[in-house]
Amino acid sequence: MTDAGTYALRPRRTRIDTHQEYVLYMRSDCHVCRAEGFTAHARVQAAIESRSIVATLNTVESDWLSHDEFGLSESAWKALDPQPGDKATFSHAPAVDSMGAVRAKIYGHALSDQQFERIIIDISRGLYTDIELAAFIAACGGDRLSLDEIVALTRAMILAGKSLSWPHDVIVDKHCVGGLPGNRTTPIVVAIVASQGLLMPKTSSRAITSPAGTADTMETLAPVNLSLEEMRRVVEQEHGCIVWGGAVELSPADDVLIRVERALDIDSEGQLVASVLSKKVAAGSTHVVIDIPVGATAKVRSKMEGERLSSLLMSTANQIGLQLHCILTDGSKPVGRGIGPALEAHDLLAVLQNAPNAPVDLRTRATHLAGAVLEIASIVPAGAGTALAERTLSDGRAWQKFQAICQAQGGIRVPPRAPLRREVTAHRSGTITSIDNRRLSRLAKLAGAPGVPAAGVYLHCAVGRSVEKGEPLFELHAETRGELDYALAYYRDSETIFELSEA
Amino acid sequence: MTDAGTYALRPRRTRIDTHQEYVLYMRSDCHVCRAEGFTAHARVQAAIESRSIVATLNTVESDWLSHDEFGLSESAWKALDPQPGDKATFSHAPAVDSMGAVRAKIYGHALSDQQFERIIIDISRGLYTDIELAAFIAACGGDRLSLDEIVALTRAMILAGKSLSWPHDVIVDKHCVGGLPGNRTTPIVVAIVASQGLLMPKTSSRAITSPAGTADTMETLAPVNLSLEEMRRVVEQEHGCIVWGGAVELSPADDVLIRVERALDIDSEGQLVASVLSKKVAAGSTHVVIDIPVGATAKVRSKMEGERLSSLLMSTANQIGLQLHCILTDGSKPVGRGIGPALEAHDLLAVLQNAPNAPVDLRTRATHLAGAVLEIASIVPAGAGTALAERTLSDGRAWQKFQAICQAQGGIRVPPRAPLRREVTAHRSGTITSIDNRRLSRLAKLAGAPGVPAAGVYLHCAVGRSVEKGEPLFELHAETRGELDYALAYYRDSETIFELSEA
Repeated sequence: MTDAGTYALRPRRTRIDTHQEYVLYMRSDCHVCRAEGFTAHARVQAAIESRSIVATLNTVESDWLSHDEFGLSESAWKALDPQPGDKATFSHAPAVDSMGAVRAKIYGHALSDQQFERIIIDISRGLYTDIELAAFIAACGGDRLSLDEIVALTRAMILAGKSLSWPHDVIVDKHCVGGLPGNRTTPIVVAIVASQGLLMPKTSSRAITSPAGTADTMETLAPVNLSLEEMRRVVEQEHGCIVWGGAVELSPADDVLIRVERALDIDSEGQLVASVLSKKVAAGSTHVVIDIPVGATAKVRSKMEGERLSSLLMSTANQIGLQLHCILTDGSKPVGRGIGPALEAHDLLAVLQNAPNAPVDLRTRATHLAGAVLEIASIVPAGAGTALAERTLSDGRAWQKFQAICQAQGGIRVPPRAPLRREVTAHRSGTITSIDNRRLSRLAKLAGAPGVPAAGVYLHCAVGRSVEKGEPLFELHAETRGELDYALAYYRDSETIFELSEA
Repeated sequence: MTDAGTYALRPRRTRIDTHQEYVLYMRSDCHVCRAEGFTAHARVQAAIESRSIVATLNTVESDWLSHDEFGLSESAWKALDPQPGDKATFSHAPAVDSMGAVRAKIYGHALSDQQFERIIIDISRGLYTDIELAAFIAACGGDRLSLDEIVALTRAMILAGKSLSWPHDVIVDKHCVGGLPGNRTTPIVVAIVASQGLLMPKTSSRAITSPAGTADTMETLAPVNLSLEEMRRVVEQEHGCIVWGGAVELSPADDVLIRVERALDIDSEGQLVASVLSKKVAAGSTHVVIDIPVGATAKVRSKMEGERLSSLLMSTANQIGLQLHCILTDGSKPVGRGIGPALEAHDLLAVLQNAPNAPVDLRTRATHLAGAVLEIASIVPAGAGTALAERTLSDGRAWQKFQAICQAQGGIRVPPRAPLRREVTAHRSGTITSIDNRRLSRLAKLAGAPGVPAAGVYLHCAVGRSVEKGEPLFELHAETRGELDYALAYYRDSETIFELSEA
């Protein structure tokens, strides 16, 4: 469009980590800025041969950069991948036409299939700024997407990514809508149903707003950043896997959206349905069980809300040809003892190994869900699933299968232990009547989870148990003093995480 | 909260311009990052004595920074204002509690007065990230604010900024909701009504989504970045001023919101009402006239929409004790000849100077609005305002007053002329039946307006006039070849800016 192609600049790796956002640095007095009229915060397209990225410009007024070079943030460097001797040319970033549809949504208009398709394709290409992503998420928040729009968004997300197909008619999967700290059933379910010969190619996400996602926890036990080809090999060999969904690019737009949802600490209905179901379909699943924990401090707060979400999931699944079974479960209290990637890994290992101290609640939930998967796939008649799941766990087959899957994914690991721990005790005696899931999650996050895998909270108490004054309630695990102190300060300001009855 | 205060770092000015966003740079292996567990994109509070800012962290893995220093973007440097020898301490940014209310709004709940107050105070303190600002704007977009919420948002914006008071009972003002390129009546209205002894302390905004705001245009004629004290002196001396609202901090949150609205290219109803009226009240205005241009390609597209906006403005004004008069005007075509800060300044100078070639439409609109101001302030009976305004302009009093105001603001300037110009001619003969305001604005923006004050479009034609093939339609003004070419390419792709009837 312009003749600024005659001005090329040498790329320089600044080693500045701007997280996922692509940033370019240019002297404000270089030829390119002057010819193109670029100013700070301009959206700029940088091209080297056929590769190009769209990035945000930061201008520089110092000799840190010379006139014939430009800097790239780490993320931009990796995306543009300059080779020795390369020079880049620049232009104004093309207008992102699909933002017109986002504006229409902000103004309250319903969007068509084609509009969602274009938005999701542009997002997966990295053309949206953080501001634009946040506006899209907020405009679709709450119940602002109709069923038709949710179906359209789901289809758009499937289209924008890769899709897997498997040499079996029945491919099973399970998912939990989350909000319940410690509810790490997935690796146990995969181990059980894969032992029974079902194909369960599980792709999990990292935490959105929680202290650990399944991928975060599993990563403390085995590599999860597998390519599509590696994942396929693991599943062919072991019938199951537990890998990170982002690494296999099943729904690239979703990973971008999840980052911004995490920053906003929101996770809205329509996005949730589209995000979950698109990944199931893209992964080739045909029969899926969804765990919806319901509790006053879980993500889904009431039975009515749970039924509404279940109905949305079922209707959307129906329209995209997926067999789905939703189970509303008890979401009133945390599950197991550990909250945080590695601490949760220790819990699930205890269950798989039939250890005497294994958390019973985690085991019960896992066998219940695995049973539902065995039933929806017609391995057993309705009602007989849980018993078969229980036997598969008790006789050690699930633990054997889990180890085999970890080995196939690149080798089993021992989950790390945090160097700093601090026991926190009850300030008086009484019976624990409730534990606030949200505040408990927040506490684990302030201690460093999920960024620091070993960080989090280890519970020494449970709802319904009585404690004496001075008895330990929980232990904080952290890697740095700053984080430990920060979490402790938060706990002191919100003593109500654990409700005690009068002794 | 933490003891990381023992680790202090020396500030270094990086001279990296990140626009308004505050960015800090730290080595990922420095003591502070390690002790606090800071990673890229963390929100960090930096403090020097009693001054502190909250900023986004970029981590660096190179010797660009040493272990005992940290870098600041230009905006962060100016905000923290380090002095020689200063060292800064760091902590995790406190949680922004008001984001809970933003999330509630995303989920569709109405917000209370207190919730808006806390949101706006946090925004004006710079505690919101761009992602959070965008979510707030999108959640309040379209018609998603009730009248009560608009009143609450307006009051919150007034509270968060400074407020002026004047030693007069009647303080007049005018405002245009915009969307009409070239409609630069404000400086003419101020000159007319100030000549008539009314007090009109005008604070204007810069462009949101248009190629020029009144502050942008006025800045090509006189300084507009006046402090409150300077503004007060000008008004005491001349009865009127035309300054940039942002510089006097009447509504600091609004300036932050406007930047993000501009990036999203949206300008929604509730935000618009709150933004306009809060600035009027904060500036001490008591009697205000609002120009609402209505036209198919103006911001307000239909008479119904105009009446709805007028009614919202009137209802809100009523609740906050402001006398308001809204006028729906013809918004079907651009006003005057110049589109862009300096080009519009030349037009309004021609009107003030009674030049023979002065654009009649601009003059007529200005005297009509000035007349309405004179009437609402009871200087003349209803119906007699326009004639008095017209006389004040014809006899040179308005031009005298305008020059005096410019002098008082720091000296009158000659608006710049662009070094690069390109005439574009009609590709066939015919009568011009319409000009698309939005595309014309876009064209002026691509040529560099408002960032480049001299850039924009100068019209050689008007709706209703006939042109011969090869006759000039308009002239593009730009400062760089890149921008000129970019604008020309856009024009060639959207020939329909000027509709021609068959000759």
